[in-house]
Parts: sequence; C-alpha cells; structure tokens
Amino acid sequence: MSKKFVSEITDMEVDFPQWYTDVVKKADLIDYSSVRGCMILKPYGYGIWELLQKQLDQRFKDTGHENVYMPMFIPESLLEKEKDHVDGFAPEVAWVTHGGESKLTERLCVRPTSEVLFCEHYANEIESHRDLPKLYNQWCSVVRWEKTTRPFLRTLEFLWQEGHTAHATYQEAQEETLKMLDVYEEFCQNVLAIPVIKGEKTEKEKFAGAEKTYTIESLMHDGKALQSGTSHNFGNGFAKAFDIQYTDKDNKLQYVYQTSWGVTTRLIGAVIMVHGDNRGLVLPPAISPVQVMIIPIAQHKEGVLEKADQLKEEISKIARVKIDDSDKSPGWKFSEHEMKGVPVRVEIGPRDIKANQAVLVRRDTGDKTTVSMDNLADEVDSLLKTIQKEMLEKAKHHREENTFIATNMDEFEKILDETPGFIKAMWCGSEECEDQIKDDTGATSRCMPFKQESVSETCICCGKPAETLVYWGRAY
Amino acid sequence: MSKKFVSEITDMEVDFPQWYTDVVKKADLIDYSSVRGCMILKPYGYGIWELLQKQLDQRFKDTGHENVYMPMFIPESLLEKEKDHVDGFAPEVAWVTHGGESKLTERLCVRPTSEVLFCEHYANEIESHRDLPKLYNQWCSVVRWEKTTRPFLRTLEFLWQEGHTAHATYQEAQEETLKMLDVYEEFCQNVLAIPVIKGEKTEKEKFAGAEKTYTIESLMHDGKALQSGTSHNFGNGFAKAFDIQYTDKDNKLQYVYQTSWGVTTRLIGAVIMVHGDNRGLVLPPAISPVQVMIIPIAQHKEGVLEKADQLKEEISKIARVKIDDSDKSPGWKFSEHEMKGVPVRVEIGPRDIKANQAVLVRRDTGDKTTVSMDNLADEVDSLLKTIQKEMLEKAKHHREENTFIATNMDEFEKILDETPGFIKAMWCGSEECEDQIKDDTGATSRCMPFKQESVSETCICCGKPAETLVYWGRAY
Repeated sequence: MSKKFVSEITDMEVDFPQWYTDVVKKADLIDYSSVRGCMILKPYGYGIWELLQKQLDQRFKDTGHENVYMPMFIPESLLEKEKDHVDGFAPEVAWVTHGGESKLTERLCVRPTSEVLFCEHYANEIESHRDLPKLYNQWCSVVRWEKTTRPFLRTLEFLWQEGHTAHATYQEAQEETLKMLDVYEEFCQNVLAIPVIKGEKTEKEKFAGAEKTYTIESLMHDGKALQSGTSHNFGNGFAKAFDIQYTDKDNKLQYVYQTSWGVTTRLIGAVIMVHGDNRGLVLPPAISPVQVMIIPIAQHKEGVLEKADQLKEEISKIARVKIDDSDKSPGWKFSEHEMKGVPVRVEIGPRDIKANQAVLVRRDTGDKTTVSMDNLADEVDSLLKTIQKEMLEKAKHHREENTFIATNMDEFEKILDETPGFIKAMWCGSEECEDQIKDDTGATSRCMPFKQESVSETCICCGKPAETLVYWGRAY
Repeated sequence: MSKKFVSEITDMEVDFPQWYTDVVKKADLIDYSSVRGCMILKPYGYGIWELLQKQLDQRFKDTGHENVYMPMFIPESLLEKEKDHVDGFAPEVAWVTHGGESKLTERLCVRPTSEVLFCEHYANEIESHRDLPKLYNQWCSVVRWEKTTRPFLRTLEFLWQEGHTAHATYQEAQEETLKMLDVYEEFCQNVLAIPVIKGEKTEKEKFAGAEKTYTIESLMHDGKALQSGTSHNFGNGFAKAFDIQYTDKDNKLQYVYQTSWGVTTRLIGAVIMVHGDNRGLVLPPAISPVQVMIIPIAQHKEGVLEKADQLKEEISKIARVKIDDSDKSPGWKFSEHEMKGVPVRVEIGPRDIKANQAVLVRRDTGDKTTVSMDNLADEVDSLLKTIQKEMLEKAKHHREENTFIATNMDEFEKILDETPGFIKAMWCGSEECEDQIKDDTGATSRCMPFKQESVSETCICCGKPAETLVYWGRAY
C-alpha cells in the first residue's frame, strides 16, 4: 500500500518538473479549473497560504504598515499614465469590455498590480508633509495573461501582497525599499526555512516604472533559481506622472517618493522545490497546517485511541496536532502524511503504552526517536524547533554546494550543463552582454548581490574589465 | 474647532442618505476611485473588516469549515450550466473578452458568486460517501454590475465570504443551511451588536438556483431594512446540472445536496446605520480598530505624556489602545475620535494625575465617569463589555419601537409614511399580492420569520384568508 502511494510520484532525479506537478496534486495542494492557467487552492494549499500570510502580515504591521483594499479594475486611461509601467504591463492584462449587457465606454483591465490605483489615491490624500509617510499594503489577487503556466510558479491569477508607500524624500523611500527586502529575507529564512541572496536587479530585469528593483533569489533543488520577492524604489517618477505633491515645512510643493514590494503564492512553489523529496512535500513547521500527526498502531486494541486522544490534548497546547484514526493501514497513513509533508509523526501502539513511551519520526530526515510519554509535549516542541532550524541549514548547505564561480564562458556553460546552480561571474554592465549570455545559455542575471566580491578581472562575456559581480542562473 | 468638525456632517434627521455619505467619508472609512461604483477601503475601514473577518472566520473553523480559493473567472459555458442561476446573474456580470492583445475564444465573467466553480470542483473531488460532507468557505471579492451604488451597501465590487458545502442528504444540507444562519445571527448580535430577524425568503426573493433562501434582516436607524446575510439550500439542483454524484454505502450512485451562505462588507454599512449618530460613527468594541483613545490634557506639562504612556501600556493588555499626542487641541481630538466611533476616551491631565484619577467617556452615550488610576485597566475592560452589551440592547429597543402591525393596506401605507420600520402583516402566499404591495408602496417582503404568529385573519393585499406572517419594509 505504502509503496503504491509513493510510487505514484515521479522521482525528482528522473524528471523534476513532473515530480513537482505530482507533488502539488498528490499532496492535495491544488486542483485545476476549467479556466486556463488558474488553479484552485484546496484546503491544504490554502491553509499553508493562511499561515504564511498571517506571519508576514504581522511583520508588516510591526513595521508600521496598514492594510487597505483597492478596486480590482483599472481604467485603460489610468493604466496609461506612467509610460514605462503601461509598456510593461499592457501586453499581459485581461480586459473587461462589457458590464452586464452594455459595452463599456472605456475598457477596464483586471489589475496586474496596483501602482496606478495607489497613485491616484495618494494624489487625493496627500497634501502636507504631515500626511507622510503613507505605509499601505494590500492582500489580493492579480491577473497576468501568461502564455505558459505552472501551479504556484506562474499562473494567470495569483494571490499576493503588494506594499505601496509614499515618502517625503528619496532617502526615506530607499530606506523603506531596503527595509522591506530585509523583512522578506528574515521571513524566508525563519518561517519558510529558505535562505536567499539579496541584491539589485540589472536595468534589464527591473520592474516597469522603477528606478531600482531589489530582489531575493533562492535556489531550488534542481539548481534553478527562483525570484522570491521584489522591492522597488520608484523615485518620484510615478509622483510626476500622477501629480502627487505635498507642501513641505517651508510651504513649498514637492513630489513624493514611492516604493512598492510584493511576494506571492509562488513562495509555496519555493517551499516545495527547496524542501521536497521523493516521498513528497516537506513542510517547515512554521507553515505546516498540521505540525504533528498522531498515528495509533493497532487502534482497535483497548486504550490505544484513548491514549492518542490524551496525547493530542497535551500536544495541542504547543502545536497544531491531529490524530489519523481512519480505517486505513498504518503504512498507508505514514505515506500519506509524508506526502503532505507533516513535520512530525507520533506513533503510539499497545507496546508503547505499556512502556510509557512514544515514537517520534521526523519527516525531513526520517529519524526515529523513542521518548517517554511524561514529557512528550516538551520533546515535540523542541523537535519542531530543531526541524525548523535544520531545514534552513540543509537548504543553505545545498545552496552553497551549488553555487559556482565562472571566469569565462566555457566554465559558465559547463556548470550549467553539468552542475546547475547559481553562477557567480563578473559583468561589464552592458545590456548587450546580458542579452548575449541569455541567448547563448538560457541563464539570466538574477541579481547584483549586496555582498560584492571580485571573482575575476573581466566580464564573462565580452572580456572587458568588469567590476560588478552578478549571480546568474536558469530561473523559473 | 470641535463644532466645525462635527458641523461638517449633515444631521441624520435632516437627510439620512447624506448623513450616511458624510460619515463614511469623514470617519475615514473609504475613498472613491475613478472606477464607477468601486470604493477604496482605507486603513480604518479595512481595519474594521479585518476584525470582522477574523471573528467570523473563527466561527467558520469552529463549525468545521475550511478555507479555499477559487479562480476569479468563470467561462461563459460554465456559468450557463444551471438555468435559474445564469438567468439571475448573467445580466449583471463583467465580461472579460481579451487577454493581452488577443481576443478570447470564450468570454470569461468576473465571478458574481462562485457556485458554478465549486460545483465543477466538487464534481472532480467527490466520489464516495467518505468524501462527504465538503465544508468549504472562500474569502474574496466579487463583481456585480449594479446601476446605482452606495459605499458598503451596494458596490460594483465588494468583499465577502461565500460558504459552499456538499452533503449526502437533503436533511444534512438543510441542517447546515440553518446552522450557518444561526452563526450569522450570533455574530451579528455579539460582535456587531445588531439584532436580526431570522426567516425564510419568499419564492420571489429567493437566490437564483436555490430551493430555499434564509435571511437575517436588520433595521436601520431610518426605519429601512437591510438584508444582512443569506443562507441557501440548493437541494440537488446544482448537483444534477453538474453531475456531482457519490456512491453511497450500498454502492449506489446518489446526487449530493448543496448549500451556500454569505455575508459582505455591507455589514459595515449596517453598523454605521444602526449605531451611528449626529457626531458620526459609533463602533461596537468588538470591531473597533481602536477601542480606547487616550487624550492627554495640557500635554506639554511635565509628567502628562509619561503618565499617558504608562496608562497605555496597562490598557494595552486588555484592549486596542492608542494615545493621540498630536498638536491638535483636545476639543478637536475629542470630535475627531467621536467621528471615528472610538468606544472609550480616556482624558488625563495634570489635575487628574495629582488626584490619581482619569476620566472615561463613552462614545455611545456620552457618559463620563471619573475612576481611580489604580484599577484603570479593569475599569476600561468592564466598560467595554458594558458598551458592547448596551449597544445591542439599544438597537433591540429601537427595532422593537419601530416594528408595527398592519391589518390592512391603509394601516400599512400610513406606517410607511409616518413611522417607517418593520411591518408585520399577513400574506396569502401569492406572488401577485407581493408584486402589488411592492408596486403600490415600495415595500418588499423581507422574510417569513421563523417565529410565526397570526396578527390578522386575511392577506393584507387581497383580503383572502392568510396564514403566513411576513416582515415587510422598504429596504436598502
């Protein structure tokens, strides 16, 4: 039974994309719908999003941000107000042309992102320096008409948060941009157990309308990179396009400086591809809807279910815990909850009860330990903390093992072919070289990391002197 | 200053709709956007929604429901699968016809409600009686192309939750339908401090596709009714249209029975119109983003701000508390926080500090009490509970005072003209009479209350014998 359950997913070494699709479905995260490229987040998938959202939202509130809700529609003329922005997004939006039985006089797009709506609102709301800063965030779904889609990683509609802030000075906007990047980094590390590289995007990879785009980049199990969150400093470009001005302390009119920053359900894709294995999903405890699954052994025997209930009661004080007392076999249950990535399994049967002990099994390593029932809740608590910590360490180790240095294109291509991962290589700064590298290898510049170093003297592509270190990689 | 602030809103006795619009804007709940009929929920308005959502969501989880997320688009052919449903909604949906630069082969509507998406999913997911019941809920926004709109009460896009469940039997579906109506009733009473009448909608007022629609109806300050939440039993009509079948214990194929139930941001409109007064919003403590506002008097004097901080620290253990130490005058601050409906104001100045006391002012009644600082947190805690309780009592009293009995059409019309409110009157059950009453008076049947009584022998309209009591009223 157990074997059958697991054999239904492809080995990641055989076909990583197929492994991913299998896990997403078999772990009960999503279902497909009849709308191309849109996914249904099932209770287990949405439960992960709820935990992620709650912990991220708390971090936004702790840093002084307030949630708002903007309309989902943007009139075409409003979208067109900032040139770079409309050029970036117009080709990939969904257009509403009819309301009820009437044709609209102006098309509305379904928001692909809400910069222009926030700008219009800020132009109304901001008058004086006393109104600044505005630190708003919104949780919603957005739509981008993508050609090819994959659950969590790229969907037509996806859930996300978008922070939008307005400040008196460029400096304050820049501080905000970097502060939120730090919030994302800390969140990815401590909640998702995913280490990230922080850096700046090149001109080519910048967000449409931004002066500077910063990113956190993570490395998946197959050596591909995933852009996991971005934070943008808009300078006062949008403010000029939307006439968002305030009177400063000297009663002079000034444009505001703005930022935006966002992460999406894509982060769940990152969790799957960083931590998952051939038995399915592996969830960090901080976002596991079920942190501990108690599996009674020989549950028909007297006292087993009662004891399991008692343990559940104790553990429920420190963790999200469930009992699986369905009529499936223990082996089947083991596989099923392994597939769903439950961090800790507690096995308890008649012999354990007699010996006043229980067996704890870690999902991430498979390690089993037998512990006394007297301090089971404490043991579980400490085990969950250990798992959370060690999953991050393991992911860091994997990233370090799969980060390489290339000093010329031969090395670069050899790495991509033989040991895909992050490639650190120098770049002269020209978009021509960036394009060339992408065309020749499929790898893109992931970021110019904050931690700069010199790994060679010359640009990997053109051979001219180069001072900028770039992380490169094939990316989702 | 204080006078000016308040004089900016119209008296409700002079022009109730204008009073409503003024409060919504001046209390900082919303802003208008450039999209007709869509509102921006500002931090204060969204903060109320977050508190409402959190407490309602907990009730859904406590009754065994799980959250999911469905796509926002519905293909036209999917919407058309259940005839009554499409007839009810197709005239008021927004149609997406283009994705990026291409025309779509099939139009997509932006969900006005998600029955058909849940049905399609359930048809995939449900195979056996072991898969039942399915108890799903979704928090999202929906779009209905309304001709006239008003903030919170009727907007093109609004936030809501929609529960969708599937059951093995009609009886179970019926129990679920009524259980969720009870959840709404308890929530409205204990959280929003709004009493509701529970009852069944007439055939004419039923939801498109439902066998039975139940409603909670509340009475606004101006004597108009507001449908505040609905719960529908679909029988197996959708199941037949979407072929949602399960194998029962005898291995026979059976159709499932379904329900849906929802409440929206309209509930915030109800809170405004039930509790508000001529000084603005009055919020029940359970959904107040700020429950206690501390206003330091003569705050420049030594020790005042320090003491205020200390009190805030103490009160923060039991309530959401803020200090307003801006450079506005105390009078201005009083008016501002009254406008925003903050339940309790704490005034503290040099003389209070000397006397080891503080002044507590209730927003709902204006009552002032002077209490010792030694047990301020306890006093505030008990005051908040009293306010929550007495706001409900006051609203109940208002509803009772404004619920009338009519035994003929003259009485009926006289009540509507002179003392608008709920009208209890008998109805023969014919849609003709219902239509006639609406055409003649503008009043609609709100519900056939669960608590039936006989207030006369004959139908208010046609004079034939009548056994059904109906609540009537002009409604939002």
